[in-house]
Amino acid sequence: MATKQEIASFIAREFPQTRVQVLEAGHMSATVAHEIGVTELRPGGTVSGPVMMATADVALYVAILGEIGIVPLTVTTSLSFNFMRKPSADRRILGVCRLMKLGRTLAVGEVALYSEGLPDMVAHAVGTYAIPPVKS
Amino acid sequence: MATKQEIASFIAREFPQTRVQVLEAGHMSATVAHEIGVTELRPGGTVSGPVMMATADVALYVAILGEIGIVPLTVTTSLSFNFMRKPSADRRILGVCRLMKLGRTLAVGEVALYSEGLPDMVAHAVGTYAIPPVKS
Amino acid sequence: MATKQEIASFIAREFPQTRVQVLEAGHMSATVAHEIGVTELRPGGTVSGPVMMATADVALYVAILGEIGIVPLTVTTSLSFNFMRKPSADRRILGVCRLMKLGRTLAVGEVALYSEGLPDMVAHAVGTYAIPPVKS
Amino acid sequence: MATKQEIASFIAREFPQTRVQVLEAGHMSATVAHEIGVTELRPGGTVSGPVMMATADVALYVAILGEIGIVPLTVTTSLSFNFMRKPSADRRILGVCRLMKLGRTLAVGEVALYSEGLPDMVAHAVGTYAIPPVKS
Repeated sequence: MATKQEIASFIAREFPQTRVQVLEAGHMSATVAHEIGVTELRPGGTVSGPVMMATADVALYVAILGEIGIVPLTVTTSLSFNFMRKPSADRRILGVCRLMKLGRTLAVGEVALYSEGLPDMVAHAVGTYAIPPVKS
Repeated sequence: MATKQEIASFIAREFPQTRVQVLEAGHMSATVAHEIGVTELRPGGTVSGPVMMATADVALYVAILGEIGIVPLTVTTSLSFNFMRKPSADRRILGVCRLMKLGRTLAVGEVALYSEGLPDMVAHAVGTYAIPPVKS
Repeated sequence: MATKQEIASFIAREFPQTRVQVLEAGHMSATVAHEIGVTELRPGGTVSGPVMMATADVALYVAILGEIGIVPLTVTTSLSFNFMRKPSADRRILGVCRLMKLGRTLAVGEVALYSEGLPDMVAHAVGTYAIPPVKS
Repeated sequence: MATKQEIASFIAREFPQTRVQVLEAGHMSATVAHEIGVTELRPGGTVSGPVMMATADVALYVAILGEIGIVPLTVTTSLSFNFMRKPSADRRILGVCRLMKLGRTLAVGEVALYSEGLPDMVAHAVGTYAIPPVKS
């Protein structure tokens, strides 16, 4: 297992350009936040799809690292998204992940995405990660 | 219908920061390329997942605009990805889209993603776009 | 809105061969149960994938009818599944649906699938339904 | 590798109630057909969703067995569907599978579903199968 601080340091070091912050991790779950600025918006004053996708991907990764420790070679194998509502242009995107399965080689989780402070889910994701085998 | 040039101009104007170029559009299909540089890579020397997701999203959008013309309010409603192989760190990501359905209100397409010049698909996406009703 | 009894009668009348029962409906949610017998099993003593898929499809349909009333032309437009654990061969499959969005023309929901009485989710589904426009 | 006949015999023996026939297998692909009768239809004179889902699942399974031989413990880990057009009530459903990746432990493929003899795809599926490790 890795603490929230260990995961946040790892993310900041390995992905220095990321605009995603780790808010919570542990207990088969994680919450992350993606900053929103000019580069994250698309015409019409809404958050771009790839920003929400990146948020979900990191939320899943953080939830898994919170359980298995810092295992950098853990990789996404599938991700599926439903976009449901237009996100607010001036609020961070929150990704709230809950792991549904954590096996030896595969983890499955879902992520609810919100505009921070607003009650309605803007998008929903389900993803699977492959966990590399432990070397002995 | 919109030509490749009209779509490329629209994308460049509306998404000035995008690193995706339109290579082909028309006949229910599109090909786009995402530049790869330091900001697109992740540790281990591979292309980040969100870069591939953005490429697929744009490829679908371009294929649809090639059929219905420049309709900015067309929005992604779902996208699902399978990541199959590690992309090359020093080649552009190509997204090759084929529309499977183009209805009045909904379009469905698939996108094969490649490292440019290499034969094996690195990822595959299927997405749906909602097309706004035509005002009369 | 339709009550649980109205929906159960509709399902029994329209799908006379279904082995799915409506247990709950309402409040943006539904619970259904699929009987398991010889025809639902596959080699190795487990429930076949299509049985779980049918259960999820009906759970979503029931949750939507509970909100919009009996609208037979409502149709599934997408469904995605993750299969996580081997279901028990001698317990009903329960599908517990929660709607995440109920718009005028599109509903999105998720379904957790269980072997009745066991705590671990055996599969998870996310689906979208198209709701036909109301005629006036 | 297994021949079309070996796979067809295996499917008939292990799934005696299946209404799916193996038409082709090999070269990273497969074609199967699902018989359509009263039990496969739903109100409105169309093929039920679970019939199309079962067809896609078997098509993927057959394509994989055609490459790796008869490995019964191969199991579906994910399946996602887009339903695009209403299938014909009086034609078999064909599932045409193409494998996109066949790794040591995971296979990924897509399936185009048709009403036999009609040109338009009625649904499209993408699925992943876990292949059990070879014992030595």
